[in-house]
Amino acid sequence: MAFFIKKLAVIGVGLIGGSLARSLRDQALVGEVVGVNRSRSALEKALALGVIDHGTTSATEAVQGATLVVIATPVRSIAPMVAHIAPFLSPGAVVTDVGSVKQSVVRECEEALAAADNKGGKCHFVGGHPIAGREHVGVEHSFATLFAGSRTILTPSAHTAHDALELVRLVWEATGSYVEIMDAAYHDQVLAATSHLPHLMAYSVVNTLSDLEDQIRAEVFRYAAGGFRDFTRIASSDPSMWRDICLENRTAILAILTRFRQDVDRLMEQIASGNGDALYGIFARSKSTRDRILAENKILKG
Amino acid sequence: MAFFIKKLAVIGVGLIGGSLARSLRDQALVGEVVGVNRSRSALEKALALGVIDHGTTSATEAVQGATLVVIATPVRSIAPMVAHIAPFLSPGAVVTDVGSVKQSVVRECEEALAAADNKGGKCHFVGGHPIAGREHVGVEHSFATLFAGSRTILTPSAHTAHDALELVRLVWEATGSYVEIMDAAYHDQVLAATSHLPHLMAYSVVNTLSDLEDQIRAEVFRYAAGGFRDFTRIASSDPSMWRDICLENRTAILAILTRFRQDVDRLMEQIASGNGDALYGIFARSKSTRDRILAENKILKG
Repeated sequence: MAFFIKKLAVIGVGLIGGSLARSLRDQALVGEVVGVNRSRSALEKALALGVIDHGTTSATEAVQGATLVVIATPVRSIAPMVAHIAPFLSPGAVVTDVGSVKQSVVRECEEALAAADNKGGKCHFVGGHPIAGREHVGVEHSFATLFAGSRTILTPSAHTAHDALELVRLVWEATGSYVEIMDAAYHDQVLAATSHLPHLMAYSVVNTLSDLEDQIRAEVFRYAAGGFRDFTRIASSDPSMWRDICLENRTAILAILTRFRQDVDRLMEQIASGNGDALYGIFARSKSTRDRILAENKILKG
Repeated sequence: MAFFIKKLAVIGVGLIGGSLARSLRDQALVGEVVGVNRSRSALEKALALGVIDHGTTSATEAVQGATLVVIATPVRSIAPMVAHIAPFLSPGAVVTDVGSVKQSVVRECEEALAAADNKGGKCHFVGGHPIAGREHVGVEHSFATLFAGSRTILTPSAHTAHDALELVRLVWEATGSYVEIMDAAYHDQVLAATSHLPHLMAYSVVNTLSDLEDQIRAEVFRYAAGGFRDFTRIASSDPSMWRDICLENRTAILAILTRFRQDVDRLMEQIASGNGDALYGIFARSKSTRDRILAENKILKG
């Protein structure tokens, strides 16, 4: 099924928003692309790189006449942004986001659109999450094939209009991403386990090392070698992004951390009692689980 | 200072033992190299690759006449191996190891040599740990420059003869490694923090995912993406090696895990109470610590 978006507004022109705009432009699936950013220099870069046709710091101006609005801001800004632009949306406009937490975001965005729905032409929100992070952020690192071979999760609710969901699905499929539909709460549980838990534990390991007494810390810093570098790569992510994720996905994160802490307690008991067979069992099982996870994902990048 | 080893015995011809032998042979710093392995096929590979001159499954035979004996077996086999070969060592022979735990290993090896010291010519043990692991093990992956630019820690005790320590230091420096001298107990604390803690937490995260209910596990497996792959790479290490490390370095590992668990508890409290400022502080501090650690290690590979 083909589609054409006459006017696309991208609010937050960074790695994700910029890559999406590039992909759709390259395929001539959009007419005009308006980029919104608080930073004028990001807009200038995006213009110079041909990612957008126009740039503005005014979201309310940008969304007027847009058929699709993509909110690619930090997670905690998504719902406030939707509330802010809602009165200025064109009737029937579809609004979607790329946030990594969905339940709270979808609920608040739907409420914001419903509250502003006073012009007769209902607007629609579709929660989305393209799983395609990179270490380097910013529009200067965006590229049209970022999403090729990745997965994108869409989290429609009982209120989501069929046509709105289909448009957003087609947009992500056009970028080369595999789209899957998931309940928002379930999405948050899955991401808490696969993404939030590893990130938080990488941060925690580094923090534990920071806390060591001054003398041993010097050696600890010097002997943190290759394994440490890989293991803690994700602890170099943006701190404000992870603060927001913790605040927005509190319940699912606390649930998985509680399980994790029980597993650590059990590991410590086996070490303390010198139970070699139990320890071997834990490590062997973990190794085989990891190998199966990687086998299952080898067709995908991400 | 130059050195020449007339006969080198390498017990355990794998990645580490094989790479050490290759490096010394390539530089003509050894006369004869005898490799010992339980597996005949590993010995045949090592012979075919020119890593060793002779191969045998008998350690007691191999060490006769050797001036340097390198024990490159799993950690828990080191001290039993030293006890096994002690009566067959030539007077004045130097024995060293490459195990990643040092306090218990050094104590037991010294005891084993002292107990067998009945031929008048005292033999010497020097604890060593080249920090140079790789994902792929086995002699077929060994190469002469594995240790170039790495760090090797030597852990002499009050009983270690100066000349024995110097020989082992020269050998590792000849491979291109930076040698540092450290107290064995201190080594074990440093490694517990920089290596054992990250490995055990990577194993634990994967185990927590394995334990999830069947349904969510399917999605968890499918959405474990790039960050997860890097983070858990070290959970694909040899389970028996990590069992041994936990058993041999129990005290230091439990101490660092206790600190880590307290840090996780604190993180959970901040998430539960929605304290965004505290969460930002934790993540920002962790990111800056990691950046400093990497800056400090950028001259080194590892």
